[in-house]
Amino acid sequence: MPMAAGTLLYAQSGGVTAVINATAAAVIERARRHGLRVLAGRNGILGVLREELIDTTPLPASTVKRLGQTPGGAFGSCRFKLGSLEADRARYERLIEVLRAHDVRWFLYNGGNDSADTALKVSRIAEEFGYPLTCVGVPKTVDNDLAVTDTCPGFGSAAKYTAVSVREAALDVAAMAETSTKVFVYEAMGRHAGWLAAAAGLAGEGADDAPHIILFPERAFDEAAFFAKVRETVERVGYCVVVASEGIRTADGAFVADAGGGKDAFGHTQLGGVASYLAGRVKDALGYKVHWTLPDYLQRSARHLASATDLEQAVAVGHAAVDYAVKGRNAVMPVIVRKNDRPYRWTVEPAPLADIANHERTMPDDFIREDGYGITEAARRYLQPLIRAEAPPRYGRDGLPRYVQPRLATVPTRLPPFEV
Amino acid sequence: MPMAAGTLLYAQSGGVTAVINATAAAVIERARRHGLRVLAGRNGILGVLREELIDTTPLPASTVKRLGQTPGGAFGSCRFKLGSLEADRARYERLIEVLRAHDVRWFLYNGGNDSADTALKVSRIAEEFGYPLTCVGVPKTVDNDLAVTDTCPGFGSAAKYTAVSVREAALDVAAMAETSTKVFVYEAMGRHAGWLAAAAGLAGEGADDAPHIILFPERAFDEAAFFAKVRETVERVGYCVVVASEGIRTADGAFVADAGGGKDAFGHTQLGGVASYLAGRVKDALGYKVHWTLPDYLQRSARHLASATDLEQAVAVGHAAVDYAVKGRNAVMPVIVRKNDRPYRWTVEPAPLADIANHERTMPDDFIREDGYGITEAARRYLQPLIRAEAPPRYGRDGLPRYVQPRLATVPTRLPPFEV
Repeated sequence: MPMAAGTLLYAQSGGVTAVINATAAAVIERARRHGLRVLAGRNGILGVLREELIDTTPLPASTVKRLGQTPGGAFGSCRFKLGSLEADRARYERLIEVLRAHDVRWFLYNGGNDSADTALKVSRIAEEFGYPLTCVGVPKTVDNDLAVTDTCPGFGSAAKYTAVSVREAALDVAAMAETSTKVFVYEAMGRHAGWLAAAAGLAGEGADDAPHIILFPERAFDEAAFFAKVRETVERVGYCVVVASEGIRTADGAFVADAGGGKDAFGHTQLGGVASYLAGRVKDALGYKVHWTLPDYLQRSARHLASATDLEQAVAVGHAAVDYAVKGRNAVMPVIVRKNDRPYRWTVEPAPLADIANHERTMPDDFIREDGYGITEAARRYLQPLIRAEAPPRYGRDGLPRYVQPRLATVPTRLPPFEV
Repeated sequence: MPMAAGTLLYAQSGGVTAVINATAAAVIERARRHGLRVLAGRNGILGVLREELIDTTPLPASTVKRLGQTPGGAFGSCRFKLGSLEADRARYERLIEVLRAHDVRWFLYNGGNDSADTALKVSRIAEEFGYPLTCVGVPKTVDNDLAVTDTCPGFGSAAKYTAVSVREAALDVAAMAETSTKVFVYEAMGRHAGWLAAAAGLAGEGADDAPHIILFPERAFDEAAFFAKVRETVERVGYCVVVASEGIRTADGAFVADAGGGKDAFGHTQLGGVASYLAGRVKDALGYKVHWTLPDYLQRSARHLASATDLEQAVAVGHAAVDYAVKGRNAVMPVIVRKNDRPYRWTVEPAPLADIANHERTMPDDFIREDGYGITEAARRYLQPLIRAEAPPRYGRDGLPRYVQPRLATVPTRLPPFEV
């Protein structure tokens, strides 16, 4: 491997996952093999703007390894979207100033659509300023909505969590349905695309297996039809397990969650209320005893139930991103390319950030069953490999996973403060 | 082992757990070694009253083994409490009739407080009728509220799920707190006793580790003090993870969960919950961005995260129950007796059902920290061994645990139908 002295900056962006730190650890390990020093933005791009740069050099290899099996985002992430180059010019200029002050030659930004867009813009402004910088996006998101790539690191583990949890809860409901809960509603993340809800479909195979109903944001929610399906299922099977995507909407475009919740202080929609809302409606309309679950962050941080496939891909994109960077492949992202379904074969290849930035991939039409309440064989072929094989973390003698939260020191600042 | 031809009846009762089927499998395996035939009540005691008795004889040993690693209740459970011997005489008589019709000589009832009471009453009425029957209770409950026993099979696994999930979600919150969620609320099962909420305390060790606040039903909920603690935590740590027991009440005895439910403006049922209510209150009062989770059945069916200690105990009480039954030890329950904390040593001993029936064990006072928001070292010593070691189920090539739902046939009825 070629030696290339210099500094690489890595930052995490957006919602974290069970395996984003596996990517981070892979980046650090690979960069060290290239002889690079790795800085990390504290809380993502915010830390770069604020010149809060964590020096990963003091982290022993053993800590980096444990970091790789710790969920969450080790260096902090953020929800912070930069605007257009024109509107947000001062911030882009500040980014270049900070990179220059610390002699950063490679910038790796690990996130979703927005992050790909940011990385692309940083590469453009660096060029404009004549600052030698190679920008590489690194994919991550449990939403699985990035364009070009076959799947997004983080999704497979959340998908496995979803399928396993639904299968387990369904066994519980089945055992109790005679005298207790007859309808159980599981709320899956996914505001615009039903990928995680679809993954729940892997929990069952036969026609009467749970989940009996999946509600996708890609299909308009029709309450009367839903009630009919619930009733028919309870009458035939004895109980009904429903998986609802948080982003389902009625035909007029209104989020169902809004009917059960409210607005936040800024007039923003507060999501997270689909399951409780549907459960309440079923109870009123059909009289069944209901239970519901909102796993929320549990579904995207469940490193204890990571998919080995997902973990492997999270590591692979980390390695590839460093390799691309060192080779000067600017404005690209390592993406997963599927070569075969069964057995699942894939490779990592570079794709232009411009093809990924700000695009959003929803579920193909032929992944959703004709009746709108389940997944097709095509969906199963796509999803199945992504949750395959187990990659449990190491556990301590205390019965808990040996996750780490290392103390992380930032390097001394070299610039005046900047008000973000 | 002595051979004892005859029929043993096993039934499950109340909420199921991740390991109650491990007890069932242990009962079947041990009974087979004694040469007994095992019937199982479909949906617990209801199946006995209705003469819906599953014959476990055709189940191959391999299926019984897989059953032992499947969550839920394989034969069905029920929420159905028999009244006093006087008030419910017809049903008790029917039970004896059914047992007699199928020549059942040993009755094992696997459940919590109520089930211990039912088993005791069945033993009394059998005696009154001169019907030779040995009744043995078998402990089970994620609520951990059975008297006499050191712990209840099912609790350790739910406790491990709770501690692991809180640790994982806390890492997620920590990573995002700068620009996103600052307060996260986890709702734990436990209407009367805070055992599962307490188990969350194992997720952290240092003063600033999550969970930062645990709310126990054993302490009156004081909203103003809670708000102050949340604010102080966010200001010091950057975020605050709260674990709330579903059963917390205000000083006047009102369940906090009830404040979040009710009817909306359209007369629709609003299903409440402690976590969503507290999250809403924190948001309104303190202005922080909040998220919450309601794991619901996920926490008691998470066989994928079972505690090996819990699993071992679930098997041990199954074996002991059969051994006691065969020896004619009537009206007892195998209980876990703790011999030592560190290392954890325990044995199984028989305890009179009369000492267990209808008692409820709440958390000892000295398990809750002085300020009411955390667990003490004494609680830690008690809880820690219960979540220790992992016992993952076998997974299939599809990435899902190899759980089974065998088709279960009932034996032909010998009595006229009975209206329960």
